[in-house]
Amino acid sequence: MARVRCAVVGATGVAGQQFLIALDRHPQFEVVKLAASERSAGKRFTDAIREPSGRTQWYCKEPLPEEFARLTVENAAAMTTDGIDLVFTAIESDAARELEPRFAARVPVISTASAYRYEEDVPIFLPGVNLGAEGTADHVGLIEVQRQRRGWRGFITPGPNCTTTGMAITLKPLADAFGLEKVMMTSLQSLSGAGRSPGVAALEIVDNVIPYIAKEEEKVERETQKILGTLVGDQIQPAPISVSCTCTRVNVLEGHTEAVFASFARRGTVAEAAEVLRNFGAGFSALKLHSAPERLIEVLDDPYRPQPRLDRDAGGGMTTVVGRLREETTLGVWGVKYVLVSHNTRMGAARGGVLVAEYLLHQGTIK
Amino acid sequence: MARVRCAVVGATGVAGQQFLIALDRHPQFEVVKLAASERSAGKRFTDAIREPSGRTQWYCKEPLPEEFARLTVENAAAMTTDGIDLVFTAIESDAARELEPRFAARVPVISTASAYRYEEDVPIFLPGVNLGAEGTADHVGLIEVQRQRRGWRGFITPGPNCTTTGMAITLKPLADAFGLEKVMMTSLQSLSGAGRSPGVAALEIVDNVIPYIAKEEEKVERETQKILGTLVGDQIQPAPISVSCTCTRVNVLEGHTEAVFASFARRGTVAEAAEVLRNFGAGFSALKLHSAPERLIEVLDDPYRPQPRLDRDAGGGMTTVVGRLREETTLGVWGVKYVLVSHNTRMGAARGGVLVAEYLLHQGTIK
Amino acid sequence: MARVRCAVVGATGVAGQQFLIALDRHPQFEVVKLAASERSAGKRFTDAIREPSGRTQWYCKEPLPEEFARLTVENAAAMTTDGIDLVFTAIESDAARELEPRFAARVPVISTASAYRYEEDVPIFLPGVNLGAEGTADHVGLIEVQRQRRGWRGFITPGPNCTTTGMAITLKPLADAFGLEKVMMTSLQSLSGAGRSPGVAALEIVDNVIPYIAKEEEKVERETQKILGTLVGDQIQPAPISVSCTCTRVNVLEGHTEAVFASFARRGTVAEAAEVLRNFGAGFSALKLHSAPERLIEVLDDPYRPQPRLDRDAGGGMTTVVGRLREETTLGVWGVKYVLVSHNTRMGAARGGVLVAEYLLHQGTIK
Amino acid sequence: MARVRCAVVGATGVAGQQFLIALDRHPQFEVVKLAASERSAGKRFTDAIREPSGRTQWYCKEPLPEEFARLTVENAAAMTTDGIDLVFTAIESDAARELEPRFAARVPVISTASAYRYEEDVPIFLPGVNLGAEGTADHVGLIEVQRQRRGWRGFITPGPNCTTTGMAITLKPLADAFGLEKVMMTSLQSLSGAGRSPGVAALEIVDNVIPYIAKEEEKVERETQKILGTLVGDQIQPAPISVSCTCTRVNVLEGHTEAVFASFARRGTVAEAAEVLRNFGAGFSALKLHSAPERLIEVLDDPYRPQPRLDRDAGGGMTTVVGRLREETTLGVWGVKYVLVSHNTRMGAARGGVLVAEYLLHQGTIK
Repeated sequence: MARVRCAVVGATGVAGQQFLIALDRHPQFEVVKLAASERSAGKRFTDAIREPSGRTQWYCKEPLPEEFARLTVENAAAMTTDGIDLVFTAIESDAARELEPRFAARVPVISTASAYRYEEDVPIFLPGVNLGAEGTADHVGLIEVQRQRRGWRGFITPGPNCTTTGMAITLKPLADAFGLEKVMMTSLQSLSGAGRSPGVAALEIVDNVIPYIAKEEEKVERETQKILGTLVGDQIQPAPISVSCTCTRVNVLEGHTEAVFASFARRGTVAEAAEVLRNFGAGFSALKLHSAPERLIEVLDDPYRPQPRLDRDAGGGMTTVVGRLREETTLGVWGVKYVLVSHNTRMGAARGGVLVAEYLLHQGTIK
Repeated sequence: MARVRCAVVGATGVAGQQFLIALDRHPQFEVVKLAASERSAGKRFTDAIREPSGRTQWYCKEPLPEEFARLTVENAAAMTTDGIDLVFTAIESDAARELEPRFAARVPVISTASAYRYEEDVPIFLPGVNLGAEGTADHVGLIEVQRQRRGWRGFITPGPNCTTTGMAITLKPLADAFGLEKVMMTSLQSLSGAGRSPGVAALEIVDNVIPYIAKEEEKVERETQKILGTLVGDQIQPAPISVSCTCTRVNVLEGHTEAVFASFARRGTVAEAAEVLRNFGAGFSALKLHSAPERLIEVLDDPYRPQPRLDRDAGGGMTTVVGRLREETTLGVWGVKYVLVSHNTRMGAARGGVLVAEYLLHQGTIK
Repeated sequence: MARVRCAVVGATGVAGQQFLIALDRHPQFEVVKLAASERSAGKRFTDAIREPSGRTQWYCKEPLPEEFARLTVENAAAMTTDGIDLVFTAIESDAARELEPRFAARVPVISTASAYRYEEDVPIFLPGVNLGAEGTADHVGLIEVQRQRRGWRGFITPGPNCTTTGMAITLKPLADAFGLEKVMMTSLQSLSGAGRSPGVAALEIVDNVIPYIAKEEEKVERETQKILGTLVGDQIQPAPISVSCTCTRVNVLEGHTEAVFASFARRGTVAEAAEVLRNFGAGFSALKLHSAPERLIEVLDDPYRPQPRLDRDAGGGMTTVVGRLREETTLGVWGVKYVLVSHNTRMGAARGGVLVAEYLLHQGTIK
Repeated sequence: MARVRCAVVGATGVAGQQFLIALDRHPQFEVVKLAASERSAGKRFTDAIREPSGRTQWYCKEPLPEEFARLTVENAAAMTTDGIDLVFTAIESDAARELEPRFAARVPVISTASAYRYEEDVPIFLPGVNLGAEGTADHVGLIEVQRQRRGWRGFITPGPNCTTTGMAITLKPLADAFGLEKVMMTSLQSLSGAGRSPGVAALEIVDNVIPYIAKEEEKVERETQKILGTLVGDQIQPAPISVSCTCTRVNVLEGHTEAVFASFARRGTVAEAAEVLRNFGAGFSALKLHSAPERLIEVLDDPYRPQPRLDRDAGGGMTTVVGRLREETTLGVWGVKYVLVSHNTRMGAARGGVLVAEYLLHQGTIK
């Protein structure tokens, strides 16, 4: 069976390279084009990421797949969608705003950029949460709205911010079971979340915490309401929940840690909450999509877990790991507090985007 | 004028060494005795902290003061209060439970241990907050209750847990101004808070976060209510506030970072909250006690501050630094959220204890 | 075909756990006994490594294999060799001195301890270097000497110190080609090399280097001469080389980095040296032993490599990675300098020991 | 007495800020001009280092001195020497090559840049080593050669590379005593040595070592020979020593650690070498220059020292700390090996430059 022909735009950056790893020998997607900035254009990928000093800027722990090493990088600004069926973009927001609509006019665009996340007709898919979900919780219908409104043959679907990801995944089953009202969260985010080179300087973060990540808190608050919202007619009604957070950066390479406090309309028990978290996504996992983990959420009893170094790679970085689940009664009538670890460059970025594409292919929206 | 003669018990450990630095060339206190475990007894201090390999276990960044290097360490279990007027203890809780009453029968004991913190007749002093405060907010009267009830000439007064310290200091002026109702906090605690050797193993914390610190959360919740409580008759009535927290350990040498969310009975503005924080403790600072900082609280506008490495040493480690002050309306009707950095081994431990002693000397309880 | 029945002694420690990972679903070795200190005896392995707090002390990044989780841990001091054909030991030197001869009286003992390393009739095997090597460079013959001299049915064969490993592997082909005379080395060793819990305290190593590792330099100097020596009659004649080193500890989790300067009797070129390194061990690799890497040595051209985080896992942690190969004429007439990264808990410890066992099984000494 | 009026060029960068700290309330130098790139020109210093986000880019642990905060930054490219007697430059090599001669035509220029370091008529001053030294070891005479040859009223004198500094200081007394022949060195350099923002990315160095620093090794080898050379007539004859090194970057904020192996023409003892190191620079220290430490070199007996975090601030960062002094006979007939820690942004950069200026003022070359 022929594979879907894909382009990866922004392929030389951290997130772009993560797309390559996620797409390496993929059974359904075949990478046929790589694009990046003009500076890289015309070079073989392996040369595009090599500096004049001889240093190779490859950011993944997996080795660069041979098949991509030899591809010639195109200039993203000049790239056409000729010969491709699908585009994965891993570019800065400004570039995304300009390039993505051009691609989307013809083919689907799966993006890690925030440029279109907050537009009314653009869904922020989180697999198993609002994609492959039941009833109005499933936002897949918004794609058709977007296509018609914009007159596109393709569409744009950005993934959530990497910090939203783990929180929204874990809140979803709790919200369904107990009726979510309020969430407060403090994040301890990893360095790889800071995006493209050079990222956070070592001189800033060694023996330190940085208590602020520009624009992050607003994104998390807004995206959580949208992702947990319902699709009514041609609109997503944001979930009527109150979200407040403080986002910090800590000296960890990969894996965001989040301390979540949540309150609900209905009382439950910690054991019920654990059960609900553990069972979440069974239907989605049963589809056995290539990038899907066996379990979307894992719950640990060891009070010293989850830890980002030990738990970020659970389910190939696609499982959100929860621990320290306790009762929480300060925030509202009843609730729980817990700590989660979510892999910010896997489920929280490129590989999460590939999983979205896999589901849309399975479901028929991507053909 | 003769200085008060002091003993430091547990002098060879991290907190004990911090006492030595805080008491180095102190105008009012003179260290005349050092005590530690039997293993160190009979050795000069400088020999007691030298391992057979030649390695010196001195944990402070300031050099070991010459005057203490030559003192002979006594066996704490056999130490008497002969010739001393005051004892500073920096020992484990089990040892404190046994030794501190023996010392307190005769002289005041300023402790960093938690052993007696939660007993009814034992105050947990925090300078400027419930010591040197006005009216029933001042807990100094509980000392006389303790003495009479226990028949002691001295008394025991433990400092709060290092994580409670910064939070209680910053909540106090806000509570006074707006009526505190609820607090939620996530701490990012430093390595030095883990206490005595060997502390946290490097293999655990490099590229990692540890999401649990045994017994810490309960301490913070309980101590905050007690410290912000009122002394009515011979009892402290805990503040009627709800406190919920998650305590984590991050890869930082010194300085606890805390993300605080607080809600109040009365509405205010962020500007008012900043004003109230900035003005706090002016009266206490005016006493110009030796270890007191110019300001108990500093408020920064740079959104990337406070950072533990940059701000822990503010006011010689005795100033709590606040930043990221924002409005918070998820937790209650009105509130604020902010990030603070507090030096856990200075104000949050030994040097905070010395400041308590300075105030009690000034006020007359220590003579 | 029946697998060789093995015991792992010291199974609960860091190195012992590494043995379990190296032996997980091994085609030739079957772990049938686990032993540790008395404290763990009688517990299932999974319980033996769980602390009262609920914390699990599992130190490997691979999950604990199910098959070992259920085994009951024996008391090493009381363990017999009944029902086993081979013992892997990962215990402290003092314990090794006592226990290993008792096991060796009956079965082969592959050890990570230094207890017997320097005895005349005990070889320090390094696969491909002095095991599976040609002529007098192969030390396997010393086993029979040991057995006869001690009257044992088994034997003891300890692996080299983890810091010796990478250096001796890379010096071997250079020595053969050019005639090694002098070596100077500075190591930047990782934290996991510090052995059992608690290892290096985070407070010591964050933002720091520790310039001394007790007894390490003597071991490296002595072991390198022995491993590169020749077996003449029933004795190993140490290689007539001069070795000088400074061993330091840096803030790296795993993987030792070593800056090596070597001088030779015969002139060559850097290109020849690179060739000789790259080709080394082809014959040994051709045996396709289960734990052997495709290449014993990899040589990188990128001047910014090798880096421990990026290169320690080359060949499953069994390949020594060399970079920065340059000419060196200060030390002697002609030589080279280079930087290597070697995985100290893989090739440099347990998995290197398993590879030794695989070779000895292949060669017939273990049956 | 009127202070010498100075300009600091490149004042907003890391090294420039270090100049400001070194010149804060200096008894002899008064900073009257600050210059930086065009982007900063016309802004008050405090505004020039504040980003649009509100983040202040101040890199020193000491707070920004009030007196400098208010100065207006000039455009370095347009800056004249009007009203100033001396220029301190902390700029990139390319800029230095262009700007420094323009300033030097009129006033002395003390530089941290490497642009002119290797020119024949430019001395690389290291206080106490080749400045304030005896006989032909003192290079101060080269300034007059430079002035005449270039027709300048001022001159340029760059400091050595930060990695050369500690090694050359410690080699000098040993060379004088025993006749230096060969040096081999491996450096473990700190992050602050990587210069201007953004420096080393945290993603590169966490849990890692980088085994290469571009151009560093050549600089160290060449500069050491020049600094230890003799001034014969109007030329420096490089010391006839062979130097070989490997420079690496480790995860340390400040303070370079270097493992040095040195061989000499004449035999001595380790005790003599320690004595010679300890006594070095007594005459220079006796001048009591403002930035000079009490001792240029400190020798520690604790085998676990020096450590960069504990020892970099010795003598205000101006003392080189030596430890692990041992005999070394591999490199030559007789020698020593040792580990040193040198503060790369104090003695190894700006503050070292200020000390050079202080000496030249004392000696009369700067007026």
